[in-house]
Amino acid sequence: MVTIDKTDRPGEIRTPVDPADQAGDAKLIFIGRARTPWNIREACPKNLREAREPGGFARIEVDPEWRPGLRDLEPGEAIIVLTWMNQARRDLLVQAPRHRESLAGVFSIRSPVRPNPIGLCVVRLLACDAEAGLLEVDALDCLDGTPILDIKPWRAGVDVPPDPTPR
Amino acid sequence: MVTIDKTDRPGEIRTPVDPADQAGDAKLIFIGRARTPWNIREACPKNLREAREPGGFARIEVDPEWRPGLRDLEPGEAIIVLTWMNQARRDLLVQAPRHRESLAGVFSIRSPVRPNPIGLCVVRLLACDAEAGLLEVDALDCLDGTPILDIKPWRAGVDVPPDPTPR
Repeated sequence: MVTIDKTDRPGEIRTPVDPADQAGDAKLIFIGRARTPWNIREACPKNLREAREPGGFARIEVDPEWRPGLRDLEPGEAIIVLTWMNQARRDLLVQAPRHRESLAGVFSIRSPVRPNPIGLCVVRLLACDAEAGLLEVDALDCLDGTPILDIKPWRAGVDVPPDPTPR
Repeated sequence: MVTIDKTDRPGEIRTPVDPADQAGDAKLIFIGRARTPWNIREACPKNLREAREPGGFARIEVDPEWRPGLRDLEPGEAIIVLTWMNQARRDLLVQAPRHRESLAGVFSIRSPVRPNPIGLCVVRLLACDAEAGLLEVDALDCLDGTPILDIKPWRAGVDVPPDPTPR
């Protein structure tokens, strides 16, 4: 069980009820876990750009029952990895993030602290051994052992927003 | 309760246990729902590009308890909307999607059918009434009423993959 620090900073606004204590509306299953060089939150890069700089390893281990689903993933392609940031609290609607001066609504920032702490990493697949359930990617900005929820191909045609529409 | 068709196509491979029947490793809460013109799966566009063509409305209704988190979202910016595709089955590892000739591993395609049916829409925010919990976006490719899990700002610096690394 992870112990989560719940000291609030000035101006922060909590949810009326902590989502972590609610019965929940749907259930996730973990399909594997991330392997990264970062074992404590303080050492974890704050985004993928920073994670790429030191050039540490980044791997995904997929559990045996899901490995047939790795078929057709090709090294070189870009993928989206969804993670479950299980060391993040879930009860802050307005936050004062470490790397920012002002308060911000949770849905306007990429903080791991959110009602559903789903992390999103757009990365390059470097190697894939489907049988062993091992994927090597160019970077991951999450803690070692972070549960993996999904892997999807990234598509420039839908995953880049269209130009702003004149209003 | 949604009734899900579970007829398999030739060559498809199921998970040993249906994830929908498992106790689950983590619990999601729904923060709101999508409002789209599509009420049945057959009418639903297969991706965001197709959803933009007819130009129908696309809105997100955020429930009252989460609305303080909408602060600082600005019309014109690009956002990532995560949805819970609750009408999709979860037990197919290798699939023969409707729009494709051959079989494919679930993690190599964007099918809504996946162990954790989390949908991802990169869209442009057109209007935001934080107090009323109403967001208007340029498109959503999900069914009307689809639960919303998260809203994040899209960032070109981290959400576009780096160029392929020479190997």
